[in-house]
Amino acid sequence: MAKVAIMGFGTVGSGVYDIIKTNSEKLTYSTNGEAVNIKYILDIRDFDDHPEKELFTKDFSDILNDAEVSVVAEVMGGLHPAYEFTKSLLESGKSVVTSNKELVATYGTELLEIARNKNVNYLFEASVGGGIPIIRPMHQCLTANNIKSIAGILNGTTNYILNEMIKKGKTFDDALKAAQKNGYAERNPAADIEGHDACRKIAILSSLASGKTVDYRDIETEGITNITLDDVKYAAAMDSVIKLIGYAKLFADGRIYSIVSPMLIKNSSPLAGVDGVFNAILVNGNCVGNVMFYGAGAGKLPTASAVVAAIVGSVKHFERSKKIRWVNPETVVLAGGEDKSFAYFVRTKASADEVSKVFGKCEFVDNIVADESAFVTGEMAGSEAKEKFAKLDIVSSIRILD
Amino acid sequence: MAKVAIMGFGTVGSGVYDIIKTNSEKLTYSTNGEAVNIKYILDIRDFDDHPEKELFTKDFSDILNDAEVSVVAEVMGGLHPAYEFTKSLLESGKSVVTSNKELVATYGTELLEIARNKNVNYLFEASVGGGIPIIRPMHQCLTANNIKSIAGILNGTTNYILNEMIKKGKTFDDALKAAQKNGYAERNPAADIEGHDACRKIAILSSLASGKTVDYRDIETEGITNITLDDVKYAAAMDSVIKLIGYAKLFADGRIYSIVSPMLIKNSSPLAGVDGVFNAILVNGNCVGNVMFYGAGAGKLPTASAVVAAIVGSVKHFERSKKIRWVNPETVVLAGGEDKSFAYFVRTKASADEVSKVFGKCEFVDNIVADESAFVTGEMAGSEAKEKFAKLDIVSSIRILD
Repeated sequence: MAKVAIMGFGTVGSGVYDIIKTNSEKLTYSTNGEAVNIKYILDIRDFDDHPEKELFTKDFSDILNDAEVSVVAEVMGGLHPAYEFTKSLLESGKSVVTSNKELVATYGTELLEIARNKNVNYLFEASVGGGIPIIRPMHQCLTANNIKSIAGILNGTTNYILNEMIKKGKTFDDALKAAQKNGYAERNPAADIEGHDACRKIAILSSLASGKTVDYRDIETEGITNITLDDVKYAAAMDSVIKLIGYAKLFADGRIYSIVSPMLIKNSSPLAGVDGVFNAILVNGNCVGNVMFYGAGAGKLPTASAVVAAIVGSVKHFERSKKIRWVNPETVVLAGGEDKSFAYFVRTKASADEVSKVFGKCEFVDNIVADESAFVTGEMAGSEAKEKFAKLDIVSSIRILD
Repeated sequence: MAKVAIMGFGTVGSGVYDIIKTNSEKLTYSTNGEAVNIKYILDIRDFDDHPEKELFTKDFSDILNDAEVSVVAEVMGGLHPAYEFTKSLLESGKSVVTSNKELVATYGTELLEIARNKNVNYLFEASVGGGIPIIRPMHQCLTANNIKSIAGILNGTTNYILNEMIKKGKTFDDALKAAQKNGYAERNPAADIEGHDACRKIAILSSLASGKTVDYRDIETEGITNITLDDVKYAAAMDSVIKLIGYAKLFADGRIYSIVSPMLIKNSSPLAGVDGVFNAILVNGNCVGNVMFYGAGAGKLPTASAVVAAIVGSVKHFERSKKIRWVNPETVVLAGGEDKSFAYFVRTKASADEVSKVFGKCEFVDNIVADESAFVTGEMAGSEAKEKFAKLDIVSSIRILD
């Protein structure tokens, strides 16, 4: 029998508890016969009315010092004390599974290295894409491929907001209010709408795909707060939609370019149809071509199901590290905007003549808003785009996903 | 260093060879340092012009009797001698990885049992969905879930044909010719267009999801040969598309219902946008909800990349079985059509009055073809549907995916 502990009894933690209780038969089958039992739940709050209140503790050392506990689910979120707890647990020879994207994006390299040295697991499937299988499939099933690029809808809140704008014609503000009303956005929605959440996730995926550390703080991150209903209408006229994309391109020489930015996506792309709070990650490998993983990117049970699957994986492989990790602790230098060019959709108060003078030959789009020009540029490096945009009175500019 | 053999140097086999050669550095990284080397290629044909012609053999016993060979890729296809070869290899303690859906669907239970007893691997990721990660993600990442249903576009040929009808207004015959011209359909296309290929695949997925043997011969299988352009137009008018779906429903009491059939799918479903020869598998789990896996379902390098990933998995886990398997060798009794009801889209020469007399309250659809009635029934068990359809002059009836 495997004894596990849950650290943090919030949304995900209580989901982990529920799944272990309700799907216990399936879990015993999955571990090839070993029952999964919860021995501790760590939380600073009181849960005196809980039917298993005796499991709760406020003292981390109860878990750390109990040799019976082999796997711990860290679902408390935040950097501290999650970092210190995780480090202590791994160093003491316990495996840790996590949904904590911030911790993985910030201290993943160090924690994975400790896990490797101690021959235990630090599994983070639930840190990206909620319940969607992405970390293990990318690491294992696509292992014969050199990953060339990743383009993901990694944040359900922003996808919901954009979808409300696209499908229902709501303004950004109204769509945000709807998201908050439905529990899809926090009262302070900055982490989502400014792209920070997606940034952590693309950093993790970039690290995993490259085997090197991609520091999320190095990733250019633009949210969706500047996207207007007019932009959305232009996109529709171009048979496209606007999505917030976490993007990574891996160059053959080992350099990596990552960015989080709203992008125009053709309706023919499988990413275009990803509605509501769903997430999807499109991975391009040099052998397999495009594969996409789609599902609920957040939520209690979806995320918890990924955590519990990782617990099962840890129980089955307890005797040794599963070695899902990035090997090389060196921080990778992101290729500058110079190296990855995008075409842009641009709206400007300038005339078509002025546009052509700056951008050369452009593809103009029938303007939806009076007294402006709308056009698609050729592919440009980031510095070139910035320089040219500065020469005109730009209303908006949005990258186009190729 | 891991020595492997490839059995069958056709499309997939030569792809396996190419990937091992071109991505060797990545593979060594993936196995945590162990290089993957090809020692034999088994094929009855001559390859005297091949740069590594010394690897080729026509004698299976070269592979069977070589203790150095630890993993064998069976990519020869067909039941015999693939079955006998695989059985011998597993019994001699070698792991086998395969893309052979027919073999897995027919003898999977027995071969997996042998692998289990010998503590080696029989891995069949490439047998379903080509390069799409589906077997391992379903088995590992969704392991905390009770799988409730699977709906998959499992055959690229038929999806291409239907897509040509939907997007380009081609007739079935013209679309089939286009598929043959582009190399997406065989000269004898029966295995694809009559649903037999999809049937093997949904049998494998049903077995994996349930842990029991689902015999593909028990699965009701209807192809797309009766689908007309008029059906496709009706579907469009109903904001839907027609796709060939391999479907499985798992009941809480352990029964399983599987079918291969054309189905009407709402455009809002993520399956609806799956174009061309792509495949996608939508899995519903009791915790994670809907997740979808999308990608190239066939082709040399996509399929080979799944085979090579399985080789890597086998090399990493050689000392013990990965135990991806269905445990229970009992053949599951498929629930009859009684247990899984579908709503149907129906076209008939009968009048609306006659329709209502047989089907009760129906939702009528504006008819596109003169002198017929088109309508959507309520949900009916298979026997009820059959009985009622017999009472009217039916032009076509198509299940609706719920």
